[in-house]
Amino acid sequence: MVRTGSASVAAGPTLAVVAREAGVSVPTASKVVNGREDVAPETRRRVTEALDRLGYVRRPRFDAAKAPRLVDLVVHSLESSGSGAVLHGVEEAARDAGLEVVVCAALTRKRGGRPERGWLDKLGARGSSGVLFNLAELSESQYAWLEQHRIPFVMIDPVLEPPPGAVSVGAANWQGGVTATEHLLALGHERIAVVAGHRHTLGSSARVAGYRSALASAGVRHRTEYVRHAGSDEAAARRRMRELLDLPEPPTAVFVCSDRMALGVYEALAERGLTVPDDISVVGFDDLPEARWVTPALTTVRQPLSEMAATALRLLVRMMDGSRPEGTRTELSTRLVERASTAPPRA
Amino acid sequence: MVRTGSASVAAGPTLAVVAREAGVSVPTASKVVNGREDVAPETRRRVTEALDRLGYVRRPRFDAAKAPRLVDLVVHSLESSGSGAVLHGVEEAARDAGLEVVVCAALTRKRGGRPERGWLDKLGARGSSGVLFNLAELSESQYAWLEQHRIPFVMIDPVLEPPPGAVSVGAANWQGGVTATEHLLALGHERIAVVAGHRHTLGSSARVAGYRSALASAGVRHRTEYVRHAGSDEAAARRRMRELLDLPEPPTAVFVCSDRMALGVYEALAERGLTVPDDISVVGFDDLPEARWVTPALTTVRQPLSEMAATALRLLVRMMDGSRPEGTRTELSTRLVERASTAPPRA
Repeated sequence: MVRTGSASVAAGPTLAVVAREAGVSVPTASKVVNGREDVAPETRRRVTEALDRLGYVRRPRFDAAKAPRLVDLVVHSLESSGSGAVLHGVEEAARDAGLEVVVCAALTRKRGGRPERGWLDKLGARGSSGVLFNLAELSESQYAWLEQHRIPFVMIDPVLEPPPGAVSVGAANWQGGVTATEHLLALGHERIAVVAGHRHTLGSSARVAGYRSALASAGVRHRTEYVRHAGSDEAAARRRMRELLDLPEPPTAVFVCSDRMALGVYEALAERGLTVPDDISVVGFDDLPEARWVTPALTTVRQPLSEMAATALRLLVRMMDGSRPEGTRTELSTRLVERASTAPPRA
Repeated sequence: MVRTGSASVAAGPTLAVVAREAGVSVPTASKVVNGREDVAPETRRRVTEALDRLGYVRRPRFDAAKAPRLVDLVVHSLESSGSGAVLHGVEEAARDAGLEVVVCAALTRKRGGRPERGWLDKLGARGSSGVLFNLAELSESQYAWLEQHRIPFVMIDPVLEPPPGAVSVGAANWQGGVTATEHLLALGHERIAVVAGHRHTLGSSARVAGYRSALASAGVRHRTEYVRHAGSDEAAARRRMRELLDLPEPPTAVFVCSDRMALGVYEALAERGLTVPDDISVVGFDDLPEARWVTPALTTVRQPLSEMAATALRLLVRMMDGSRPEGTRTELSTRLVERASTAPPRA
């Protein structure tokens, strides 16, 4: 930058010098420097040029009195389509509460779903007001660190049983399993299988329990060979579906515990030349955007991810303000979204 | 909390009192308080209990020397599936650079794609080190504010022409338009239409220009009635596709300037009982996750969103460190992803 100003400046010109150079009042120059919007464009241009000519540099500095409080959101992965809904819910609720959100991906494959070492130090140095986790887990010492430092945290859809006393928000997974299974029973299916996630994850085991309850209520025999645990990816779901089709009495309907896995189930059915829903009915879980795009469009149990995330943020704000939520787990209801992947069994 | 400690405490116990109560050394108590991980679990438990009994409260405070620098990412919407890829790229590159990311959604419908008023004040008070925008625009006075305060910014895939001198990263949109069209020409199509986005957006006009260039190079006549601008949503694309099908000589192939719009085109074709690709070929643009899930899977031009976002973050870091990038626009190459939606025209 070439300085051509006539003022003799050592550590930079004062605002008075800038104002004189631009031919405006000091308050007007101040408005421009402080980014206020109530300045005429031409005035702003003159002041900006004077600032540049004189080499006036004023970068905002951290201002504890005005700085918005920050909350941290740690997500399992930013690439899955569910994380967009979570982020959307958190961001909107945070905006309403006057907070800002720092996002961190836990990158499971590299780090077992945990944020990297050093993350807590950064969070501490920033003076984070609270933390939300989505499908991400901390180590015991990381939880202990948050407790010790009185930094409140809330878990959104925790994968495993949260530590004692931890506050979490999830979907009504058990009820969702009941709903999906009752829908298939109502269509006349009795040979209903389930392709579930990992055996020990909270969401999956509750969904399978709901499936069992619905069968029991309807007086339909539960067959253990109809329950297959697939982890959570498409490829595993495809393998489990192949196994189900190879049974002496294959199912006429399948409840798949995530939309993502339902895509793998669709692939296994297509391989065998089976048509959904004529040959076999499929119900998913989640209602991710892709559920609408597959053919036939997937009937699924909607998990209100954005609402869960917004609820978690609001609970966190109450905890930041010193109050303790009533319970440790809040569940939001799920509902069936009927599309084109379910029909009565073949006569 | 019930305080049963024997120490007489006014403003809270000192660390020495805590250490004595726990029967450990002061450095060990300090380690626990500071969240260091090199402490035996039993020792940590004893210190934590002593901290609780004595009511020792130490919340981290903002520490300018240790606080990581924050950058702001302003995205058009957090719900679109493209924003996940952008966020993923920014977050990973930021982690590598030792930065943290504050996310803000611009919420177009309410605010014309611009962040709310007051956002700049918060960003200033936080001492933000730089800003990235994705498909989001600022008002002139907001840009001026950033310039004045010397807060560098980089635009990822700007919708409109960026302000003079602004640094941006985008896809090679023109080349992508050429690639899509050449693919259809190579299959033997000559009646190739294009369903484009808004007429004046940067990405869309470059893609259409690429389409025209490819036709011209192949000596295929350009028909103005084959170019339809649809905005960017599915419903508009569906309407434009219906118009194309109603032409006296409808196209045998269509290049759709986004995957999202291609879904609308699929719907219009299904309404008329037309099969993709037997009756008509479709090429999309973006390679969003949904391109894989539709039937038939969409052939599309891949836009490397994560890489674009990571590149933008790295450029921003250089600007934060005082250097200026060589050019104002960086383009990353696109490539054709062939799936099942294109085939030679019917004989």
